[in-house]
Amino acid sequence: MAKRILVVGGVAGGATCAARLRRLSEDAEIVLLDRGPYVSFANCGLPYYVGDVIQDEKKLLLASAELFRTRFNIEVRTGNEVLSIDRENREVEVKRVQTGEIYREKYDALVLSPGAMPIRPALPGIDLPGIFVMRTIPDSRQIRTWIADRKVERAVIVGGGFIGLEMAENLANRGISVTVIEMLDQVLPPLDPEMAEPVQEHLIKNGVTLHLSDGLAGFEQSSARGLTVKTKSGASLPAELVILSIGVRPEIALAKEAGLAIGERGGIRVDEQMRTNDPNIWAVGDAVETRNIVTGERGTVPLAGPANRQGRVAADSICGKESYFRGVQGTAVVGLFGLTIATTGANEKTLRRLGTTGFQKIYLHPGHHVGYYPSATPIHLKLLFSNDDGRILGAQAVGQEGVEKRIDVIAMAIQNGASVFDLEEAELCYAPQYGAAKDPVNLAGMIAGNVLRGDVSLAEWESLSSTSALLVDVRQPEEFAAGHIPNAVNIPLHQLRSHLQEIPRDREIWLNCGVGQRSYYALRLLLQHGFKARNLSGGFTTYKHFQSRLLRQA
Amino acid sequence: MAKRILVVGGVAGGATCAARLRRLSEDAEIVLLDRGPYVSFANCGLPYYVGDVIQDEKKLLLASAELFRTRFNIEVRTGNEVLSIDRENREVEVKRVQTGEIYREKYDALVLSPGAMPIRPALPGIDLPGIFVMRTIPDSRQIRTWIADRKVERAVIVGGGFIGLEMAENLANRGISVTVIEMLDQVLPPLDPEMAEPVQEHLIKNGVTLHLSDGLAGFEQSSARGLTVKTKSGASLPAELVILSIGVRPEIALAKEAGLAIGERGGIRVDEQMRTNDPNIWAVGDAVETRNIVTGERGTVPLAGPANRQGRVAADSICGKESYFRGVQGTAVVGLFGLTIATTGANEKTLRRLGTTGFQKIYLHPGHHVGYYPSATPIHLKLLFSNDDGRILGAQAVGQEGVEKRIDVIAMAIQNGASVFDLEEAELCYAPQYGAAKDPVNLAGMIAGNVLRGDVSLAEWESLSSTSALLVDVRQPEEFAAGHIPNAVNIPLHQLRSHLQEIPRDREIWLNCGVGQRSYYALRLLLQHGFKARNLSGGFTTYKHFQSRLLRQA
Repeated sequence: MAKRILVVGGVAGGATCAARLRRLSEDAEIVLLDRGPYVSFANCGLPYYVGDVIQDEKKLLLASAELFRTRFNIEVRTGNEVLSIDRENREVEVKRVQTGEIYREKYDALVLSPGAMPIRPALPGIDLPGIFVMRTIPDSRQIRTWIADRKVERAVIVGGGFIGLEMAENLANRGISVTVIEMLDQVLPPLDPEMAEPVQEHLIKNGVTLHLSDGLAGFEQSSARGLTVKTKSGASLPAELVILSIGVRPEIALAKEAGLAIGERGGIRVDEQMRTNDPNIWAVGDAVETRNIVTGERGTVPLAGPANRQGRVAADSICGKESYFRGVQGTAVVGLFGLTIATTGANEKTLRRLGTTGFQKIYLHPGHHVGYYPSATPIHLKLLFSNDDGRILGAQAVGQEGVEKRIDVIAMAIQNGASVFDLEEAELCYAPQYGAAKDPVNLAGMIAGNVLRGDVSLAEWESLSSTSALLVDVRQPEEFAAGHIPNAVNIPLHQLRSHLQEIPRDREIWLNCGVGQRSYYALRLLLQHGFKARNLSGGFTTYKHFQSRLLRQA
Repeated sequence: MAKRILVVGGVAGGATCAARLRRLSEDAEIVLLDRGPYVSFANCGLPYYVGDVIQDEKKLLLASAELFRTRFNIEVRTGNEVLSIDRENREVEVKRVQTGEIYREKYDALVLSPGAMPIRPALPGIDLPGIFVMRTIPDSRQIRTWIADRKVERAVIVGGGFIGLEMAENLANRGISVTVIEMLDQVLPPLDPEMAEPVQEHLIKNGVTLHLSDGLAGFEQSSARGLTVKTKSGASLPAELVILSIGVRPEIALAKEAGLAIGERGGIRVDEQMRTNDPNIWAVGDAVETRNIVTGERGTVPLAGPANRQGRVAADSICGKESYFRGVQGTAVVGLFGLTIATTGANEKTLRRLGTTGFQKIYLHPGHHVGYYPSATPIHLKLLFSNDDGRILGAQAVGQEGVEKRIDVIAMAIQNGASVFDLEEAELCYAPQYGAAKDPVNLAGMIAGNVLRGDVSLAEWESLSSTSALLVDVRQPEEFAAGHIPNAVNIPLHQLRSHLQEIPRDREIWLNCGVGQRSYYALRLLLQHGFKARNLSGGFTTYKHFQSRLLRQA
């Protein structure tokens, strides 16, 4: 079982794999090769290093080459780039970056953990100084230095995904005026657009300028210090700093040139044991394709958690242990100016793109803990579930506190194939500071369960402008006066029983209130009195999230 | 289907049941009877009302009689005590508390939600002024008034359970000097003793005096303002205020006198639809016995979450819907001076009491988020799991941040019958502020998984003082010098490979480090070199938790 194992790429998946290999085999010869100067660094921490939240660069180094050697008897060769794989002879060709020297190295098992590369579009001026991507510690060190040396006052971030917005927050917190350009009509693509709306409001409130539905056209040098960023819509944005966070592309060149199978989504093809189509080569991390356990779709997922678990699985497989990677479900979180945004499973956009039918969605806005205890803040929550069996398909949440907790619980439920009926019955921690006797997770399950049991029919927000239904708003008159859906009539809930004769029986009634709870009570009342009624899930709060987007588009 | 439904007891379970009944049936006549002045009040908030965290008493009233009437067409009769049930004629006998007038009321369905009564032991002086229990808003109002009027400086709390300690925190935060008397040798009985240890340290650090392993003997009036609390060990504790939080007793008198079946644990017997042995009577909440889904044991559980869900189930059952209460799993949380303590499932004490074998336990102390991001704090976590199939039996956690999140995720896993292998693979939210690529939940699963796969053998903490094994501490010399297990020898991890010849092969090696991670690496190393080795799970941190307790007992 003595083996020579080469691991190419020393972050997350690769580093985890190497360390676990040693725990499984004292005899193996393990060499970790990385073209960069560091292994096992905290790439998720880079925005916070730029933002000076993490001030000491050394904190980002989770394990040094020295530690790998002394603790794990693993040889780490940084500054060594693997150029090619000779599969027949089980050799790689390696270049010492500093000297240019090229040598060959034998392997019994080869693990590829090349990661993914930030996309740098070939646009005019893309190579001007002041335009950065962020993947490595040296990248972020350069950005820090640039900010200090050039006294950066204005920054443009291209791409409103997780990393782009983390950068926006970090730069803004350093006093830099930040503009984000995003091609889509929303930030944070893993969210559905109406769920991105409160995030956008929050970013704007915190001084970030958003250019949505706009693409990057190019760059010009406008002065010694400054650039002008040109957008497709014709805007010219001055900036001393540009961060490109458009997305990443799996680094598959090495694998492709070696003739390893590449999947249709552009990542390295692996089986459930992370083995490529070459029985002596494994691959892990951002460069491989994995299966989404909710949608069944294959894709590349640039997240550290799955990469680490894949590294373990690859090590197990190399050492002959039965261990399988189960796939990914897209759990992710981001914190922005005190707001937490988290998601797990599939979103509605993806389900529709895949032609999935037979699912429904609900919205709710419960407090993160009981209202009677001070400082409760709302969590905006969207849950997607299957009509057939109530299986949970996905959830998205936005709020100030307790957001990622609810998504983690739902993530665990999705992993276990649980249904909304399981969420109803979940026994979760409750004390006044922490939650509620009916936790937001329970409420989501109860609302969805009511739909599936036929106690509630949902109205479709998307059909609001075209429906012939009568809109009845059951809030108090003063709430109604402060804002309501156009054409809605106001019948406060507590007056509904005495006003039944005024409500038409030949027309569908769509009910609305603040967050969907009182309208649910009204719905049950009307249904039992023989009316045709539906509930607008999430109430006026969800209406505003949909509406702001429509207004912005108009 | 038009029915006359009486609900006796208007908090949590009863109020939920009544409201859901109306959502299911517009025709039913629903009357909610409560002997107290309020229905649907937030009893979990009472300690915080005494502590002035919740300042406005009205906040504790979740729904008024008026709201029940106007919104739900439910008649609420506060100040109406149900004295007896005439099952044959389906009638209850009711007393109007204020007038003493007695009347009878018919029902088609009767729901009992009587709750549980704080225990007031028959001890000398128990009726002296200044000795309180806390169950209702008037109780807490009296305590507030007493504190203000008597200028309370010293309080004794009898009972170190959840409510007792919440009271301790709230009184201490008002500047009152607090002593807690607890008969057991630990606070928070739902925890295992070694997990209660860091809680006790924290309470003491925050100025609370603990009298553990001591019982209450009685009370004497020592002055106009003051009492002396006598303990069984002979201590005399001066106090102007005493709170009895010894525990609660289900209020079953009404049910018992009506001949309803009472379970062996002293609660009202109900089936999975919350129906008693009388087909027209249901019971919910703190007074009923429910089945624990982990242990199979029946018992009474005074928690709001299960009470609410039971109320829903009873309403469904009354209205002919198929709905079942699944049982309880003992999820609970408490916050004390910035520390969060949470638990779900069975603890080790209970498993041992029930004679359960074939389970193991692990300890870990991961940061609540990655160490490279500022302000990570440890979570002390204990996980119990089955040897056969890795099924999760229970978890306990103590720490400052992210504690209840991890317990909620594990609670969901337990509910779904998941195993530690599922925890290993859980895909949870990760960004530097929120967790780690290997979340504490993943780590717990990985450590337990390693045990079950045979990669790790655990040493028993309980056998530490009697073992003939050689204790090897693999921390750095300076860590070892700062404190270590007696008789341990120090071989730092990175020197272990070069010191193998010094380690005996005829003797078991028990490995120890700070939290159990480096000793795991050492264990894998030694096992592969043919040594007999075991890991002391949780390392020196867990040792201290066990040891402090032993020292205190000595």
